[in-house]
Amino acid sequence: MTTQTAEPQRFNGFEVKAMKQTIDALTQDRTLARFEFRAANEWLGGGMNRSTIQGFFGAGAEDRSRTLPFAYTSGEPPVLLGSNESANPGEFLLHALAGCVTTTTVLHAAARGITIRSMTSVVVGDIDLQGLLALDPAVPVGYRQITMKVDIKADCSDAELDELLEFVHGHSPVCDTIRRPVPVVLERLKAA
Amino acid sequence: MTTQTAEPQRFNGFEVKAMKQTIDALTQDRTLARFEFRAANEWLGGGMNRSTIQGFFGAGAEDRSRTLPFAYTSGEPPVLLGSNESANPGEFLLHALAGCVTTTTVLHAAARGITIRSMTSVVVGDIDLQGLLALDPAVPVGYRQITMKVDIKADCSDAELDELLEFVHGHSPVCDTIRRPVPVVLERLKAA
Repeated sequence: MTTQTAEPQRFNGFEVKAMKQTIDALTQDRTLARFEFRAANEWLGGGMNRSTIQGFFGAGAEDRSRTLPFAYTSGEPPVLLGSNESANPGEFLLHALAGCVTTTTVLHAAARGITIRSMTSVVVGDIDLQGLLALDPAVPVGYRQITMKVDIKADCSDAELDELLEFVHGHSPVCDTIRRPVPVVLERLKAA
Repeated sequence: MTTQTAEPQRFNGFEVKAMKQTIDALTQDRTLARFEFRAANEWLGGGMNRSTIQGFFGAGAEDRSRTLPFAYTSGEPPVLLGSNESANPGEFLLHALAGCVTTTTVLHAAARGITIRSMTSVVVGDIDLQGLLALDPAVPVGYRQITMKVDIKADCSDAELDELLEFVHGHSPVCDTIRRPVPVVLERLKAA
């Protein structure tokens, strides 16, 4: 591009200069790509609890950019013994998946020079709560399958969009965390 | 219990009568345990998107208890090309895990007659973003491991708490979805 404006150049909403700098830095020093994300949670009674999310480690340093924590409440609907205080944890997992697939799609589209005009999606997860309630050990405890249907408008061919989505299926961190067996370690803090 | 009060009897914040009714109904008709949870998502530009969560199918019917949808925004920190609009999708996955393990613990404690006085936790997920950025195909794309440290105060022995947490590790739906390979189907809606 030869035009110059006061505004930073953006592609799919990402600042192009920052995007290139990030990729260059990570390519030169791969250890910068190691991140540690965190959430702290407190039980509030029944099926209600709240997570606070603020600091993380990444790009070689502890991040200090968030002056206040984000806070998200989990709840349950009446049929699951709650009062609709908030979405439930299984629904938050679907939100995490939708958000990650969307951001991964738009980011890799930018890297390929594809302009995304709009992207919407619906995520559906099938689960049998006999697992949670230990009513039948043969029933899987978590989701059996999750289906995400996406509607994308972009300045490329349908074949390019299909190829992009197939790539995203294998490169979205939350999608991969669900598709791959990831170890979860559960430790109880002992009283001092 | 022989006492009667105007307030419903509660255990760990759950209404005891409703809890028993739910278990009885599911034991008599196992098909009631089939649930379908959903989220709809819209891209807002760059690494920002928003999910709305309202209806779901469960207990044999479409749920109509939520008169308004819940809405949750995903964002990214500056080091990941965002403006801290909200937590990012990987952090929302940790929130989903913390919420699910907490609710599963408190629910099964109630079923065992264990009173939980307090429960807090910290969840940490390790990830190498070389996977997302396709810089090294040998690097896993999602979390390598997630560790959740919980601090529980309850009216039972340490051994009972350890046994409860081991049970929860295998019976929390979000924990199981992460630990087990769950298929994610990604479909693109074709223009009519």
